[in-house]
Amino acid sequence: MLTPLPARIDADRLWSRLMTMAEVGKTTGGGVCRLALTDEDRAARDLLAEWFGAAGLSVRVDDLGNMYGRRAGADPDAPPVVFGSHLDTVPTGGRFDGALGVLGAVEVVHALNDAGCRTRAPLEVVNWTNEEGARFQPAMLASGVLFGPLPLEAAYAARDASGRTFGEELDRIGYRGSAANRLARCAAYLELHVEQGPVLERAGTQIGVVEGVEGISWSRVQILGRAAHAGPTPMAERRDALVAAARLVLLLRDAAGALGTVRLTVGRLDVLPNTVNVVPGAVEMTLDIRSRRDDDLEAALRAADRVCGDVASADDVTVRRAEFWRSPATPFAGRVIAIVAGAAAGRGYTAARLWAGAGHDAKYVADRFPAGMIFVPSAGGLSHNEEEWTSPEDCARGAAVLLDTVLTLAELDRTA
Amino acid sequence: MLTPLPARIDADRLWSRLMTMAEVGKTTGGGVCRLALTDEDRAARDLLAEWFGAAGLSVRVDDLGNMYGRRAGADPDAPPVVFGSHLDTVPTGGRFDGALGVLGAVEVVHALNDAGCRTRAPLEVVNWTNEEGARFQPAMLASGVLFGPLPLEAAYAARDASGRTFGEELDRIGYRGSAANRLARCAAYLELHVEQGPVLERAGTQIGVVEGVEGISWSRVQILGRAAHAGPTPMAERRDALVAAARLVLLLRDAAGALGTVRLTVGRLDVLPNTVNVVPGAVEMTLDIRSRRDDDLEAALRAADRVCGDVASADDVTVRRAEFWRSPATPFAGRVIAIVAGAAAGRGYTAARLWAGAGHDAKYVADRFPAGMIFVPSAGGLSHNEEEWTSPEDCARGAAVLLDTVLTLAELDRTA
Repeated sequence: MLTPLPARIDADRLWSRLMTMAEVGKTTGGGVCRLALTDEDRAARDLLAEWFGAAGLSVRVDDLGNMYGRRAGADPDAPPVVFGSHLDTVPTGGRFDGALGVLGAVEVVHALNDAGCRTRAPLEVVNWTNEEGARFQPAMLASGVLFGPLPLEAAYAARDASGRTFGEELDRIGYRGSAANRLARCAAYLELHVEQGPVLERAGTQIGVVEGVEGISWSRVQILGRAAHAGPTPMAERRDALVAAARLVLLLRDAAGALGTVRLTVGRLDVLPNTVNVVPGAVEMTLDIRSRRDDDLEAALRAADRVCGDVASADDVTVRRAEFWRSPATPFAGRVIAIVAGAAAGRGYTAARLWAGAGHDAKYVADRFPAGMIFVPSAGGLSHNEEEWTSPEDCARGAAVLLDTVLTLAELDRTA
Repeated sequence: MLTPLPARIDADRLWSRLMTMAEVGKTTGGGVCRLALTDEDRAARDLLAEWFGAAGLSVRVDDLGNMYGRRAGADPDAPPVVFGSHLDTVPTGGRFDGALGVLGAVEVVHALNDAGCRTRAPLEVVNWTNEEGARFQPAMLASGVLFGPLPLEAAYAARDASGRTFGEELDRIGYRGSAANRLARCAAYLELHVEQGPVLERAGTQIGVVEGVEGISWSRVQILGRAAHAGPTPMAERRDALVAAARLVLLLRDAAGALGTVRLTVGRLDVLPNTVNVVPGAVEMTLDIRSRRDDDLEAALRAADRVCGDVASADDVTVRRAEFWRSPATPFAGRVIAIVAGAAAGRGYTAARLWAGAGHDAKYVADRFPAGMIFVPSAGGLSHNEEEWTSPEDCARGAAVLLDTVLTLAELDRTA
């Protein structure tokens, strides 16, 4: 058990910053549209830089536009404890996804300032560029260059739908900094985030202690039957690609259900020729499979291939699956997980361990440095949605757990 | 048994006209693109008018562009026996759908001319305008005005994808004739057509004696679930509209299978938002149900609604079905069917009775006059396809049955 600390999260101040930031790119539907490197993103960055300054943080920007606000520690040579998230959103995004992690981090610094706390290790608040991947693919582009598999030139060359590149837009909004400013040393990384799923709310749990980021596999599945006139073609002589696809969707779901940790989604399905009076000749669909266990993910893919073969035989169609993206499961550092869990317990919050089903920058950071995440409930599990909602109390609880975790990791040097 | 007649179909001459007509709007894929009232359709009409003249037929055009070529009978007051089909095609159509019925009719006239046969009743060869509905909706537009439910003004106002109206285009190609030229009297109507399905070929049968045109019902089915992130949303908490749709597709197919005469097709299916990592929130699909028996069609619709209700309960989604088009089953005249069957038997051809699963102008004509159809095999059941194929021998057999049927209906007056 940690002893309660004098530093205190100001729930109103945090909420006020969240709502102020939500004005930048506000949608008529009550959400936020703040695509990476747009004028809205620039405005959000300018506001954050102002808030960094007000919190006494020194600001630097790296060659990917990542913004860091640094607070000195008692030991200037110690690697910093880093915490933050992202300010970009999807086109009809909410007010909490990403913003809570950045502004919760700013609030942590203010709480330490107010209490006159100094840490041994320096602290750094970070705002990662283009986490969502809504404008430039892939998602988590900047952390993917720093710690993941993405070459810098590929990132700069990524184009949005109108043909503008990431590099050009970084220059245009004035946020291309220096490679020397990249995060090179890091004692530990922490990210506070809304859950984006219904588990915490459903269970009435206040804090999610995140054990890692699940592995993800994306495949395309193509089913080839034979297009035919819906009128004169007898039912028994059809090779209906949509009937085969329907069988496949259900069998895939069953196969996933047999593997406890696996979640499987057919999110996209396109029919050819897609006409009322033509028996479908072909179907293309996507397969999203996720698991915290890479073994289970592999087993799910093998089961998917078995099921594809069964449907091909049963429906006299050709079925082909081809994986086009894979991200392996990434467990977080055991020590960081334990400190987050201890911080939640120390505050008397109810907490549950879970895995992040969505991608986060913490996934790539974890490939290089000890990392962890703190989740707070999402009302109705809604995310990437204008109606995204997390209560002021839940936001404050998440920030409090972040504060205590940061203090433990960075080691309290003295309190005024 | 009919006694063999002196009039003889010239298979080579018929084939030569079919191949010459197939040059008008020929596609690089070996098919035909001759959309209604285009320059290609005009060229086909001009060629047909020339062939009408060469066959000694007097040509008239009505206010819908329908072309009639008339051969006098011994009794000028007798209502004519009418036979033909259409020269328009779908964008990637074949060389036989429609053209065989028109050019087979021209060949019948030549056979009678060659044999010096005169009939008691006059004969009229017809080319109906815009049967396919590929350019202007609805299909069978011209016969739908003459004998079906379509108002003339609605036909004239029908617009193609580029905004041009049926009426304007009729004027542009010079084929808006007089309402006085419409088909007003008709002893019987016959249409020779390719089957567009695999039944005759599969059974090795030469002639299809068509008993009527099946009833058709088109519905839209909407399934509303809840969109959710494919990552953090547990399988058990999803209301996946695509999983529900998949179950529905299979249950609908089973329900149709239980009703012997029914064919059911889900030809179109659209997923929302249709993204790899989002659990589908909604699906819209179409339902095409056909049967020769209106009772069975109604039973299939009731079964469909039951199944929609079952899926709604099982998958916790909303399912709505709404019919947007209905065409009742149309049996052909028993006497015409019997004469077609007798003609096939008289020639020693193998024949089978079947129902037309696709729409044809004969359907609307049958609402007013005694009508019938003659089918010949379609290779592989392919139609509305550049690879559509019926052999010269099959085309000639169909024309021979048409010839004998016409002669019986129009009554041979004398042979030279």
